[in-house]
Amino acid sequence: MAHDLFLYESISARLRSHIRQGSYQAGERLPSTRTLSRLFQVSVNTVTQCFRQLEADGFIEVRPRSGVFVADEVPDSRKLPELPHFPLLPVEVSLSEEILHYMEPHRQLELAHLGIALPSPDIMPIDRVLRTFRDVTRKHARDTWDYMHPHGHERFTHQLSRRSLKYPVPITTEDIIVTNGCMEAIELALRTVTQRGDTVAVETPAYYGSLLALDVMQRRALEIPTHYRDGVCLYSLEQAFKRGQVRACLLSTNAQNPLGFTMSPERKRKLVQLSTTYGVPIIENDIWGDTVYEGEALPAKAYDEAGMVIYCNSFSKSLMPGLRLGWVAPGRFHHRLRELKQISSITTASAPQLLMGRLMESGFYAQHIQHLRRELAKQTRETADLVLEGFPAGTRVDSPTGGCVLWVGLPYRMDSRILFDQALAAGIHTFPGSVFSAGSRHHNYLRLNAGSPVTERIKAAILQLGELATKL
Amino acid sequence: MAHDLFLYESISARLRSHIRQGSYQAGERLPSTRTLSRLFQVSVNTVTQCFRQLEADGFIEVRPRSGVFVADEVPDSRKLPELPHFPLLPVEVSLSEEILHYMEPHRQLELAHLGIALPSPDIMPIDRVLRTFRDVTRKHARDTWDYMHPHGHERFTHQLSRRSLKYPVPITTEDIIVTNGCMEAIELALRTVTQRGDTVAVETPAYYGSLLALDVMQRRALEIPTHYRDGVCLYSLEQAFKRGQVRACLLSTNAQNPLGFTMSPERKRKLVQLSTTYGVPIIENDIWGDTVYEGEALPAKAYDEAGMVIYCNSFSKSLMPGLRLGWVAPGRFHHRLRELKQISSITTASAPQLLMGRLMESGFYAQHIQHLRRELAKQTRETADLVLEGFPAGTRVDSPTGGCVLWVGLPYRMDSRILFDQALAAGIHTFPGSVFSAGSRHHNYLRLNAGSPVTERIKAAILQLGELATKL
Repeated sequence: MAHDLFLYESISARLRSHIRQGSYQAGERLPSTRTLSRLFQVSVNTVTQCFRQLEADGFIEVRPRSGVFVADEVPDSRKLPELPHFPLLPVEVSLSEEILHYMEPHRQLELAHLGIALPSPDIMPIDRVLRTFRDVTRKHARDTWDYMHPHGHERFTHQLSRRSLKYPVPITTEDIIVTNGCMEAIELALRTVTQRGDTVAVETPAYYGSLLALDVMQRRALEIPTHYRDGVCLYSLEQAFKRGQVRACLLSTNAQNPLGFTMSPERKRKLVQLSTTYGVPIIENDIWGDTVYEGEALPAKAYDEAGMVIYCNSFSKSLMPGLRLGWVAPGRFHHRLRELKQISSITTASAPQLLMGRLMESGFYAQHIQHLRRELAKQTRETADLVLEGFPAGTRVDSPTGGCVLWVGLPYRMDSRILFDQALAAGIHTFPGSVFSAGSRHHNYLRLNAGSPVTERIKAAILQLGELATKL
Repeated sequence: MAHDLFLYESISARLRSHIRQGSYQAGERLPSTRTLSRLFQVSVNTVTQCFRQLEADGFIEVRPRSGVFVADEVPDSRKLPELPHFPLLPVEVSLSEEILHYMEPHRQLELAHLGIALPSPDIMPIDRVLRTFRDVTRKHARDTWDYMHPHGHERFTHQLSRRSLKYPVPITTEDIIVTNGCMEAIELALRTVTQRGDTVAVETPAYYGSLLALDVMQRRALEIPTHYRDGVCLYSLEQAFKRGQVRACLLSTNAQNPLGFTMSPERKRKLVQLSTTYGVPIIENDIWGDTVYEGEALPAKAYDEAGMVIYCNSFSKSLMPGLRLGWVAPGRFHHRLRELKQISSITTASAPQLLMGRLMESGFYAQHIQHLRRELAKQTRETADLVLEGFPAGTRVDSPTGGCVLWVGLPYRMDSRILFDQALAAGIHTFPGSVFSAGSRHHNYLRLNAGSPVTERIKAAILQLGELATKL
């Protein structure tokens, strides 16, 4: 049963790709469960699971007593392509020049900012939060002034740990180490469990900041096929673990940037189980976790009985980037990570911790993220509609489950780096897909920020971008 | 002439040690300049320089036309011992357990805090600074909110660079990268110019935070003999450079912690020249630079024409530790260090930069450090007096030129770690000398904080400490 979970994904992917490529035509009857079970050498049960998934995805129709048929209309442009297949080969990461080049225009205020991934301050409670900030520095002048305990301020870490009480395996206050944003947490995690030259498994597409970290730290990347809705392929991951190819994983399970998927609880559990079985630590970047639109998305860390997950998070996306306030729960790697933190910055500034402690304590933060989720869901939907309206035929875009970015697939062979240049000349900042891969993938993709309310200006920018893409 | 600068130190040290050991008795005539010049195989000029230094130190008297005589009273307990001599051997650093053990009591509020090295908030303008802090977050809400340019906020970096206009080689705004305190700057610098296993030259005694960094990052330390008033021995340093023993140096030239010396401009220049000649970068920790009591102490960086000095500083000691605001000017290593900074924490929090920009712009900071210097000079003097009053005969303590710590030499063979335990039991936190060396030196030393005004409580604690030491 456990094993099935990976297998069925891989087989679903193959079936989807057969359907896409026309090996099975619209309306055609698929081979029987039994036949497919023999063909793929898997249990009947696994094939049934595949069918269930393919049906949910709209690829097939299961007609009781008649059999399984390819849907008349195969899933439309609202979907990204299926799980790609490619050999698992570690690669050197050499992206920093490219990433810095594409980030550069980010500071030009006059541009239409579709490049960065950040909710706009327009939908954030700036005044209220800064008022509270001033208030805590007044009431806790001495604490604000002084160095804090390297772990962080209790009032803050206690609140963080309380939020995890609903996890099957909660995070204890003692396990938390406060950091300067999520990126410091990730970097400390990488330094804790890997050495120069080691290989780290990542999604593809992956957050370019993760790839940049691997580049600068001279770690290699092993890109794991990643499904736009299910997340990283656990089957491929297990292959890599089995072969001893990777020293650690660096990934997101909630509202992943750029794909926007949230892994199911079952798959998160499975992921942790694999990590434990093969002894490969997982660095979980949960920076978008609080923005998942629907339901309560626990991180993989929630299922981490063995302490194999190094959980990293911050408030940069969900509240205030300028705070630079993050934290890490390193599980069994706590001691070493704490050492590295202590020498890298001794401790983290006090005032932001006092602020966030207060905002969580009072319930304000919980209330705020409810509001934020609604806004982001609305904005991404509206932005996606505009993309489908303005971009050339064949453009695909998925509906993310959280966050504020869209991963836009341009018609095959279009190069989004050319579009980047043309858009920039027209005053629009975008982010090309190529920097989301260390292995030269995703050239025809584009990541668009949907962090801002869709004003006339944003609307015009997206439609103009679509025109530019059409002309390409 | 250049060469003389190192030689004369080394020879002065030998002569001092002969005098201390009684090879030359009080009042005895020393051999002539010419004889010593032949004996040590150096120029007459060099010997003359030695005499000048020994005279200034009070070891000898130069009687015109009669010769040079050992002083009747050899320098007293206000002086620390002379430049020690030992072979230059790189050692693995393994101090983290010990350091963390001795730091631990730092958080216990009820103790008398003579352990840490930090000016007390009692002599800091907390209210005024926090008021300004609140003011900038009100006036620059958007800037406070958002990510900043990875380099830092212009308003802040511009002020920093202005302060260096008086340097022979000023620091440009473009060279500055803002960090989370000085420790992040140092760590980034070490990662920029050294690899795991490399050897780094440090003073002995050295700031234990530097040694902790080397330990955690698995760099080896080469301890260079360091004079309590002149700083690191340039002659020994050049030997180490010549032999290719070290990949970088990590040291302070102003108000060094724990010795309290400030190197002369001539020696700073020389240090930079050596670094340039042998291509060995210097990581300069100038965190105490602004506290030098008298005159204007430029850092070695001020003479750095070739960009070999990675200059690190922060406001944690001179104003507010809780800000976690530091900066680094990496010279020719700028590009790589910026890459590492960007992935380690993307950027540094905004509000502290706006605050310090404002405090420097208005002249408040410059005014504040004048006041701070006076207070610290007074406190260290008073604390030193108490030590000499209460500690056993044979205790030595130097008069530091800046900062707020005293390096107290207990009578030989006394182990300050035992004193640490006894003092802690009596409610007094100290810091034993052993953690200031990777090579098991300084066991009979103790570092005492003089950051607080000498209240009755502090006075009682120091005298009690002296009693405990006497009983040992």
